[in-house]
Amino acid sequence: MRATLMYGAGDVRVETVPDSALTYPTDALVRITASCICGSDLHPYHSMPAGSGPARMGHELIGVVEAVGAEVATVKAGDLVVAPFAISDNTCQFCRENLQTSCTHPQAAFWDGIADEGGQAEAVRVPLADGTLVKLPVAEDSALMPSLLTLSDVLGTGYHAAVKGGVRVGSRVAVIGDGAVGLMAVLSAKRLGAEQIILMGRHRVRTDLGREFGATDVVAERGEEGIARVRELTGGHGAHAVIEAVGHMPAYEQAVGIVRPGGVISRVGVPQYEDAPVGFASLFGGNITLTGGPAPVRAYIEELLPDILDGTIEPGKVFDATADLDGVPAGYQDMDDRKSLKVLIKP
Amino acid sequence: MRATLMYGAGDVRVETVPDSALTYPTDALVRITASCICGSDLHPYHSMPAGSGPARMGHELIGVVEAVGAEVATVKAGDLVVAPFAISDNTCQFCRENLQTSCTHPQAAFWDGIADEGGQAEAVRVPLADGTLVKLPVAEDSALMPSLLTLSDVLGTGYHAAVKGGVRVGSRVAVIGDGAVGLMAVLSAKRLGAEQIILMGRHRVRTDLGREFGATDVVAERGEEGIARVRELTGGHGAHAVIEAVGHMPAYEQAVGIVRPGGVISRVGVPQYEDAPVGFASLFGGNITLTGGPAPVRAYIEELLPDILDGTIEPGKVFDATADLDGVPAGYQDMDDRKSLKVLIKP
Repeated sequence: MRATLMYGAGDVRVETVPDSALTYPTDALVRITASCICGSDLHPYHSMPAGSGPARMGHELIGVVEAVGAEVATVKAGDLVVAPFAISDNTCQFCRENLQTSCTHPQAAFWDGIADEGGQAEAVRVPLADGTLVKLPVAEDSALMPSLLTLSDVLGTGYHAAVKGGVRVGSRVAVIGDGAVGLMAVLSAKRLGAEQIILMGRHRVRTDLGREFGATDVVAERGEEGIARVRELTGGHGAHAVIEAVGHMPAYEQAVGIVRPGGVISRVGVPQYEDAPVGFASLFGGNITLTGGPAPVRAYIEELLPDILDGTIEPGKVFDATADLDGVPAGYQDMDDRKSLKVLIKP
Repeated sequence: MRATLMYGAGDVRVETVPDSALTYPTDALVRITASCICGSDLHPYHSMPAGSGPARMGHELIGVVEAVGAEVATVKAGDLVVAPFAISDNTCQFCRENLQTSCTHPQAAFWDGIADEGGQAEAVRVPLADGTLVKLPVAEDSALMPSLLTLSDVLGTGYHAAVKGGVRVGSRVAVIGDGAVGLMAVLSAKRLGAEQIILMGRHRVRTDLGREFGATDVVAERGEEGIARVRELTGGHGAHAVIEAVGHMPAYEQAVGIVRPGGVISRVGVPQYEDAPVGFASLFGGNITLTGGPAPVRAYIEELLPDILDGTIEPGKVFDATADLDGVPAGYQDMDDRKSLKVLIKP
């Protein structure tokens, strides 16, 4: 079968690899029908040292179950399923608390942590299939496929950001980053009843989509100018919830600058730093809460799926390009060049 | 009148200063009947550069109103009152949200930010008296005075830590620091229904008091050993809520080590650092929330006062020494030497 491998920064190749196959009785073998490239895939695309790979890529996927192990009970051959980016048994104490990203099962992992499997491929072995996979009640050629695919990561990640940010009816929310996760955070804040949603971004096509998803204001300025603009828009005090959907230090600093006293900074952009300001002048003095992390998207699928099925939300609009496997390397480059917002892959 | 001044690290003096007097029509003049030394007073006691002072000290006080300005409506001469460490109007949008430490009134401040007033003195001008002061329904010589005095800071601070930590019935809580705030956090966690309260401290007299306040376990070990012990006591995964009541980096690192995935680190020890680890390996990966800040103790007085009046809680037990104003410099030294847990001052 064919799969995507990253050999180092800027070096993505599609190659023939050994066919995925059932290994454990709790596995499912899935033929992938839709996958995509994630903003977080661009981090190694920038920084992966040459010679440290190759790494199998892709952690968002929908596909058709081809075979299941003897202990799999909830999905069967022929089912169309979606897989979140984190493998979980969905029964451990953390899964029961809806923190599937901290599942304690020995086989629990993020796809990126499984050496010989990935979503940007023709097929994949899904560990802990009963916990991980959710059956989709549509046909493989459904027009809803792009939106359904966002359940595997980007929609659930944006939703997690808004939920952890405590967004509720009447909240003033600022979203830093007009990438796919930022736009999903806008949609999610809208769904949770936010009164004001300020999208910080400067890519017009994306911020226009943000407005369509519910952004009430767009701030293109960055740094001190951006901070001043958001404070002005929020009556001088900043946003109740700031969703940081980038992961770089300037975005963190921006978040600190625009959060309201007593407010929340909710991070879902994977931090590309370890230390950050958290002392009296940044977080402590204003009783600011810092929260977020890898989204337990598995926890949100049942909640968000009906809204996609009935057309209430159309998160699939974040896909502005489609490629087959051969087009994956160019898809990485296009996303890195900000020519594409998010690339859907049809293997 | 006489008041306490700090001239630099280790240099605390009691001197005659100009009498406090009404300045604004919203002021009250209060004759102080009980005050105390705060653990946070020890930070400048360690680090204040010589020649940068003198600074008036003390931010916890009970006293009798001597006079009020023309606009003061809720307290009058003769009333016994408690003042929190933060001056607030208690009517602005932040005060109404119970974040009085972020009051937007131009005269809002912490006592430590008011150059010519302080609680370790014979009298004090209290700005925004209607917002700041709460009348106490007892006589000046009530045996409850030590417990009532804790409403000015240390009890409310411990309670804020527990509330922001999300402590609820069934929580597993770890408290880092056996100082007065840590012990108040233990009492508060107990009040909120925590199932397990692990107190990290190595001063036997204090940890014994912690057990009296509700600690179910005491861990004297620090660093990696302390982390291992707490993880063992919590079934391997750490505490739902970690209350950091110290403010130094090793305490922060300890908190990161013992918090459960999805859990909360709630800080009320004033951070003596600005940057700290918050990346994937420390907070982000486990969806850890970092929260806390200066406690809006004014918000908690009405809630906690009845429990003191009816004897349900006895937070005044944290005072293990009493001094008059002349004894204040020695009181600082004794607290710094850990000979005294917390010194009550009767001016």
